[in-house]
Amino acid sequence: MRLSHATVAINGLGLMGGSMALALRGKCACVLGVARRPETAQEACRLGVVDHVVDDVTRAAVEADVLVLATPVRHILTTIPEVGPHMRRDALLIDLGSTKAAVVQAMNLLPAHVSAVGGHPMCGKESTGLESADPELYCDAVFALSPTERTSGDAMGLAEELAQAVGAHPVQVDAAEHDAAAAIISHLPYLLAAALVQTQAGAEKDHPHTRTLAASGFRDATRLAAGSVDMMLDILLTNRRNVENALDDFEQQLAVARRLLNEPDVLRRWMTMARRQRRDMF
Amino acid sequence: MRLSHATVAINGLGLMGGSMALALRGKCACVLGVARRPETAQEACRLGVVDHVVDDVTRAAVEADVLVLATPVRHILTTIPEVGPHMRRDALLIDLGSTKAAVVQAMNLLPAHVSAVGGHPMCGKESTGLESADPELYCDAVFALSPTERTSGDAMGLAEELAQAVGAHPVQVDAAEHDAAAAIISHLPYLLAAALVQTQAGAEKDHPHTRTLAASGFRDATRLAAGSVDMMLDILLTNRRNVENALDDFEQQLAVARRLLNEPDVLRRWMTMARRQRRDMF
Repeated sequence: MRLSHATVAINGLGLMGGSMALALRGKCACVLGVARRPETAQEACRLGVVDHVVDDVTRAAVEADVLVLATPVRHILTTIPEVGPHMRRDALLIDLGSTKAAVVQAMNLLPAHVSAVGGHPMCGKESTGLESADPELYCDAVFALSPTERTSGDAMGLAEELAQAVGAHPVQVDAAEHDAAAAIISHLPYLLAAALVQTQAGAEKDHPHTRTLAASGFRDATRLAAGSVDMMLDILLTNRRNVENALDDFEQQLAVARRLLNEPDVLRRWMTMARRQRRDMF
Repeated sequence: MRLSHATVAINGLGLMGGSMALALRGKCACVLGVARRPETAQEACRLGVVDHVVDDVTRAAVEADVLVLATPVRHILTTIPEVGPHMRRDALLIDLGSTKAAVVQAMNLLPAHVSAVGGHPMCGKESTGLESADPELYCDAVFALSPTERTSGDAMGLAEELAQAVGAHPVQVDAAEHDAAAAIISHLPYLLAAALVQTQAGAEKDHPHTRTLAASGFRDATRLAAGSVDMMLDILLTNRRNVENALDDFEQQLAVARRLLNEPDVLRRWMTMARRQRRDMF
């Protein structure tokens, strides 16, 4: 199966699913949307985001050559066993969830005839919903692909083709390793952003200028706190152990920073190291 | 004195001073740059950033109607008493330093004939130096102005005119209140960004995918860590008590977040509150 001949069904037409639908236009035979809320279904048709919409994911599973699960992680986990028995032989099931170990575990239990790959495109933005969907969202993003016990060679090839079709760069990553890394570079930063906003909120009554003077530094440092609560809550709850480990590591580093306020020369070296590492990464 | 008739001298032609010089073109009689390094002086002339360059700030003080100190804070603190005796009667001394209490304290000790206002434009970017100077840098930024015992009514008016001339919005803020607020919305976020980079750096050997998968979330969360070490070090050292208080408040919030990983419903409310506050601010 080549993507250009495939019916791609997308369950969940929010920011990620909607953007993928838009990015797939002209790249596959048909994009079938699955939306439970009638308003979302109407909006998706009106905007021409998908070719058709159905309200039942098992019906989409019957028709799909590729079924993409684009809802928050805990919803993906309940959907996987629901859709498995309905999928065609050799159809590909892939998800866009932000944690991978629990998803891959659920995919390993699928009927043997289903091919499945865990997916996580490393992109997003703080605005949510179909109205924020953007065909360029995936452009140049890394698209993590985690093999499962249901990943045939063909399945991984089709998953890579899907990632490339939306402009992303597929990278194979073991699910456990993905989750440990994502805790550090994504889930921990979210918690820091939220705790920073809470710190400002707690201080605002005594220090109203925390609002007046807040500028691009605070805006960027807290951007992740403005994202989808549904999505982030599921991430934290399905990756808790790794998130706790990342918090441990971070708290140690923050304690170092605090101690070094007494040692300007060592503090300068620590700051210089951080600057160099950051500049090396971006 | 109106700005349009003034000679404005700028000590320090880095990102902030260079951008101010560019933004002032056509808004004042003459922009005089002060650069100690000959390469910076040559570059400033070559790029047409200033009308003239001198290498001695006391010489600039003699000629200036407005003298802008645009170096890191601890350097500003040593420059204030140096230039004071050389300044013309009723000339305005203003700085762009990121902490204000120590600067205002130093300005209070100036000779009685000097007018002085503490200044802090709430803008910047992670790139540094004259080559990053941008005439739009100050556009729409809040420009905090802290009165001193040397601030006449005319002086504050001229400082406000300077802020507006570069496209910024002047806001009068007491120096101590500025520093308490800036610790929370600027200096704390810097330390979090640097500690987050150090956390990733410490984890990279065991988890190389912390680099491969890092995307826009990590990039924005750590942007402040890529800024000028000289500038940030002086900020932390001249605002240490407030920074320590901000760290205390933040660590309490992070402890709340960690505890709530066990209480999904309360965690959801805490995350929703943070999201609402962030969206309310930007």
